[in-house]
Amino acid sequence: MAKVGIVMGSDSDMPIMAQAADFLDKMGIDYEMTIISAHREPDIFFNYAKSAEEKGFKVIIAGAGKAAHLPGMCAALFPMPVIGIPMKTSDLGGVDSLYSIVQMPSGIPVATVAINGGKNAGILAAKILATSDPELLAKLKAYSEEMKNEVAGKDEKLQKLGHKEYLAQK
Amino acid sequence: MAKVGIVMGSDSDMPIMAQAADFLDKMGIDYEMTIISAHREPDIFFNYAKSAEEKGFKVIIAGAGKAAHLPGMCAALFPMPVIGIPMKTSDLGGVDSLYSIVQMPSGIPVATVAINGGKNAGILAAKILATSDPELLAKLKAYSEEMKNEVAGKDEKLQKLGHKEYLAQK
Amino acid sequence: MAKVGIVMGSDSDMPIMAQAADFLDKMGIDYEMTIISAHREPDIFFNYAKSAEEKGFKVIIAGAGKAAHLPGMCAALFPMPVIGIPMKTSDLGGVDSLYSIVQMPSGIPVATVAINGGKNAGILAAKILATSDPELLAKLKAYSEEMKNEVAGKDEKLQKLGHKEYLAQK
Amino acid sequence: MAKVGIVMGSDSDMPIMAQAADFLDKMGIDYEMTIISAHREPDIFFNYAKSAEEKGFKVIIAGAGKAAHLPGMCAALFPMPVIGIPMKTSDLGGVDSLYSIVQMPSGIPVATVAINGGKNAGILAAKILATSDPELLAKLKAYSEEMKNEVAGKDEKLQKLGHKEYLAQK
Amino acid sequence: MAKVGIVMGSDSDMPIMAQAADFLDKMGIDYEMTIISAHREPDIFFNYAKSAEEKGFKVIIAGAGKAAHLPGMCAALFPMPVIGIPMKTSDLGGVDSLYSIVQMPSGIPVATVAINGGKNAGILAAKILATSDPELLAKLKAYSEEMKNEVAGKDEKLQKLGHKEYLAQK
Amino acid sequence: MAKVGIVMGSDSDMPIMAQAADFLDKMGIDYEMTIISAHREPDIFFNYAKSAEEKGFKVIIAGAGKAAHLPGMCAALFPMPVIGIPMKTSDLGGVDSLYSIVQMPSGIPVATVAINGGKNAGILAAKILATSDPELLAKLKAYSEEMKNEVAGKDEKLQKLGHKEYLAQK
Amino acid sequence: MAKVGIVMGSDSDMPIMAQAADFLDKMGIDYEMTIISAHREPDIFFNYAKSAEEKGFKVIIAGAGKAAHLPGMCAALFPMPVIGIPMKTSDLGGVDSLYSIVQMPSGIPVATVAINGGKNAGILAAKILATSDPELLAKLKAYSEEMKNEVAGKDEKLQKLGHKEYLAQK
Amino acid sequence: MAKVGIVMGSDSDMPIMAQAADFLDKMGIDYEMTIISAHREPDIFFNYAKSAEEKGFKVIIAGAGKAAHLPGMCAALFPMPVIGIPMKTSDLGGVDSLYSIVQMPSGIPVATVAINGGKNAGILAAKILATSDPELLAKLKAYSEEMKNEVAGKDEKLQKLGHKEYLAQK
Repeated sequence: MAKVGIVMGSDSDMPIMAQAADFLDKMGIDYEMTIISAHREPDIFFNYAKSAEEKGFKVIIAGAGKAAHLPGMCAALFPMPVIGIPMKTSDLGGVDSLYSIVQMPSGIPVATVAINGGKNAGILAAKILATSDPELLAKLKAYSEEMKNEVAGKDEKLQKLGHKEYLAQK
Repeated sequence: MAKVGIVMGSDSDMPIMAQAADFLDKMGIDYEMTIISAHREPDIFFNYAKSAEEKGFKVIIAGAGKAAHLPGMCAALFPMPVIGIPMKTSDLGGVDSLYSIVQMPSGIPVATVAINGGKNAGILAAKILATSDPELLAKLKAYSEEMKNEVAGKDEKLQKLGHKEYLAQK
Repeated sequence: MAKVGIVMGSDSDMPIMAQAADFLDKMGIDYEMTIISAHREPDIFFNYAKSAEEKGFKVIIAGAGKAAHLPGMCAALFPMPVIGIPMKTSDLGGVDSLYSIVQMPSGIPVATVAINGGKNAGILAAKILATSDPELLAKLKAYSEEMKNEVAGKDEKLQKLGHKEYLAQK
Repeated sequence: MAKVGIVMGSDSDMPIMAQAADFLDKMGIDYEMTIISAHREPDIFFNYAKSAEEKGFKVIIAGAGKAAHLPGMCAALFPMPVIGIPMKTSDLGGVDSLYSIVQMPSGIPVATVAINGGKNAGILAAKILATSDPELLAKLKAYSEEMKNEVAGKDEKLQKLGHKEYLAQK
Repeated sequence: MAKVGIVMGSDSDMPIMAQAADFLDKMGIDYEMTIISAHREPDIFFNYAKSAEEKGFKVIIAGAGKAAHLPGMCAALFPMPVIGIPMKTSDLGGVDSLYSIVQMPSGIPVATVAINGGKNAGILAAKILATSDPELLAKLKAYSEEMKNEVAGKDEKLQKLGHKEYLAQK
Repeated sequence: MAKVGIVMGSDSDMPIMAQAADFLDKMGIDYEMTIISAHREPDIFFNYAKSAEEKGFKVIIAGAGKAAHLPGMCAALFPMPVIGIPMKTSDLGGVDSLYSIVQMPSGIPVATVAINGGKNAGILAAKILATSDPELLAKLKAYSEEMKNEVAGKDEKLQKLGHKEYLAQK
Repeated sequence: MAKVGIVMGSDSDMPIMAQAADFLDKMGIDYEMTIISAHREPDIFFNYAKSAEEKGFKVIIAGAGKAAHLPGMCAALFPMPVIGIPMKTSDLGGVDSLYSIVQMPSGIPVATVAINGGKNAGILAAKILATSDPELLAKLKAYSEEMKNEVAGKDEKLQKLGHKEYLAQK
Repeated sequence: MAKVGIVMGSDSDMPIMAQAADFLDKMGIDYEMTIISAHREPDIFFNYAKSAEEKGFKVIIAGAGKAAHLPGMCAALFPMPVIGIPMKTSDLGGVDSLYSIVQMPSGIPVATVAINGGKNAGILAAKILATSDPELLAKLKAYSEEMKNEVAGKDEKLQKLGHKEYLAQK
């Protein structure tokens, strides 16, 4: 049974949403990815958000761009955490998406991550589930180690090569 | 039967929304003013927006601040024009409200007016109704004359007094 | 007789303005498209805006970029609704166009849509005309269904393929 | 044992942080509120963030203004969710705090709420804990009902009084 | 015969416009101050701008706020320099006025000064006239000396008092 | 003898500055173009700005990007009008250049044109000189006619071809 | 002999500049505070900046608002570090001052601190001098301890009183 | 022994950081370049920043993008000057990095240079060291001469070729 719902209003957002999904896969967390537009299919959207708890979702990750209402409307209907991903936009860079998602009125929070922050949305969903799942928490700590090693490896390479050679090899 | 629905998510927006209502009163247009929160009462909101056509509304004027979803969600459910008023906010000045209302995705326009533009929302609603109501159109033209005379009167006063005396009398 | 005037100050705006025209075509609404610059041809512009009512226009769609005065000046001269399209600009992304169109002073509203929102301007014009045209209203509702089906079709494809395959096929 | 850590860098942020605490009180959730500056007391801060898991914290709520590093540095050290509250600032309105908190690099998310969104941070913390606590989830749903009733009550008053009288009584 | 036209769309801009007038007075330059709204009185405005050359104006100073079209529309009709003053606005601080005035399209420049820069508009008008008036140029140089002396006087006071006493006396 | 000085801090600004020069050429106005950096060669810059009046300059056109000090420092030293061109920047789009040029303190105006507005700077310089040169004024009016005809020609083509064919031929 | 020059263009900046001076006093560092306007007194300014090294200055702290050229022009003339303080402005909040100071072109850096960051400018000047003054470095470390104790003291008070009582006592 | 630490959180910042290093090389200043992430390796970072003084560093140059905490956290731990380089970001242009670095709270300054200002960071580090190193100061003055000659050479070329030929040869 999927514990995380991943929802986007348009398939143009899918490359970013896929980053969240891929991280959940890596952590072994079941999810369900859906394309639903709160604006173009309000009824379908309402059913989705209202039945999300019943389906077993503990977290919804919603991505949207421009006047991005999908995360906030999910948060109005779903009683557990909604994570919002503001999509980069070609004209305003995503500051429109960011304000439309993060500036929620009192009573209805959306846990907002960075513009185009698909992977971070996946990590945040895992961290939320890890509050009651020690095994998952261990996996997240292992992932942190992995990140550390990756940076340390790059530094080691820099110390060996020097920055001129490092840049030449990129 | 009310032709215009005026809806706001919070009574803190009422002073601005009242400007729209007052202009409709001046033009003799029936309206219905309501407080409904798309975020706090999504079901009530859905019923409102879906039954708006049936009630005879031709236009909805929706005001909202911050991550302002009310106008856009009205536009997703009501098939005729929705006018959005972005509320000034204490931190970002209303640029958050503006982006959340005007940057609607393709397919679902909101006719956006200026930040805190309550009166202009009322005028725009009247202009929309005037496309099929010659009598109302005549009233709007008379109102334009009124505005012209008001400015002309101020200039006349300036020519008579000079700017120093004009400012002293303010 | 054309019911909608579509006007732009420069032919560089035509690809966006064409989106409005194409939607009006789809709805069977007559329009007249013109290139007139309020800045470079103020006299021709004045005649255009003042004779627009006589020609039978019910709505004007005006697009402009940077210090975008065309929509606002139309609204000063034409008594029915003017829809403004802020053009994306290469330096400021279109926020200059947006502010120059949406922040109109009290008395002279412009119904502003999103940056580069050509199609939405066409839809909004149709919604305005639909307030007194039940047949057109029915067409708009059918268009909404079309949009719903398009999104639903994409979701169906996603459920069938999974996101990796979906993205690979794009 | 406290499940939520509430941390701020300066006591000038306390009125906003208190909104989070008060909501947790209302939900019966234990928390521990602390003033620690990541910039002025980096060692104390490190000990705080590293021992947070041991103390039983499941969520940290961190508020900060300007170049707001506290939430992000908590997220670098604490393996479960960190909620960030961007403080309004007197010069830039809080957009500096917002960017410094929400634009976290890949790997280290901060669940960001609105500028000055103290109450929403408390609600989000409760929603996170409610993913594994059905009793708390029920309380959150009751709170949603409460919010609905509050808005409905205001609308009822508006319908009874009309907007002129409503505004006069405010 | 007045050489400078000072025009504003609303008497709320008069305190700023008066700074320009006062500087012209100081330089002994004749001007004519008028309130004309390009939006509310487009015909009167057109006549004003078209007859400005005939009246002997060499420069027009136009101030406007929000979607500030007055300076740009003057520049479209008057063949000599137009100086634009962007008014500070209560919501966006005047960045809307600034963009609406400075971002003019190719062919129609507006000489833009700082937000609320009334005095600088007056100085710039004088500098323009001084390109063909050596006596006025001499007066402007004397004014520059005056400014220098004013700053030098303040520094002298600071050196005498020290900053603590200086601030205490303010 | 050159009447207009054109100055830039870096040859990367030359394509924009050349637009100003080309317009002055078209109007038959003598100019002198120079590369001088106020930051890298403050002494050479000081001599340039201080001797500008002596050389017969009536107007200086100064272009600069980022923390653009060149126009403002010219205005501090040259007693006649300085026109500032804010250069588009790769990171902030030119809003940094714009603020650094237009927001001059009281006493020292810079006549600012649009971001990358090289041609408009040339036109504005010509308009300034035309305040005392009727022949030049006549040329500027002829140029305005030329611009009108160009737009009218495009509209004619649109009316003949329709927008689909027009766009296809572009 | 003064090691630090503190310079501002207007006495309205003195309350912020005094914070820098007060910190230098606390560290026992000699400074010289001056009011000089790069725009209004370019000659005096040039002499100031060019003779600064001779006078023994090792660092200059320059504060300015709006199109803030003073720090950058100091950096063009003085070969050692210049610290820039962007002043908060009433219309744009200080973002204009910030961009005008921090976005310096390649070759001429200004060490920029926060908007209105007078105290931080003083601390940074001390840190620069401390690179060759172990005694001063020790004082700076003692100051860091002081800051730590101040925060720790506030937290102690919070733990004793609880946040409700803490806020009530403020 | 290295006098300057150059640190970045990700090797994607290396092309900009290399500009700082290359300038230090040119001045004959020893430096040590490292990749360390304050977010991904907080322990390693803490050791780095705390042992920096011991290693003989007099200045740290830290570059970071988005919610850029690296420079500020260095400044919290290292008692001498920290220079911050805000990296350009693909969505917000680097304004997020800039605010996260420059808007430091009172007590903990970061000497911020322009977005992507790698070379200027190197120059500023050299200027700081030159406050106690007359030989280095002489080298910096020679570099200033070099910059002057470079600009002068470009102007000479412009005077010889004219701008049309100059641009054609680029």
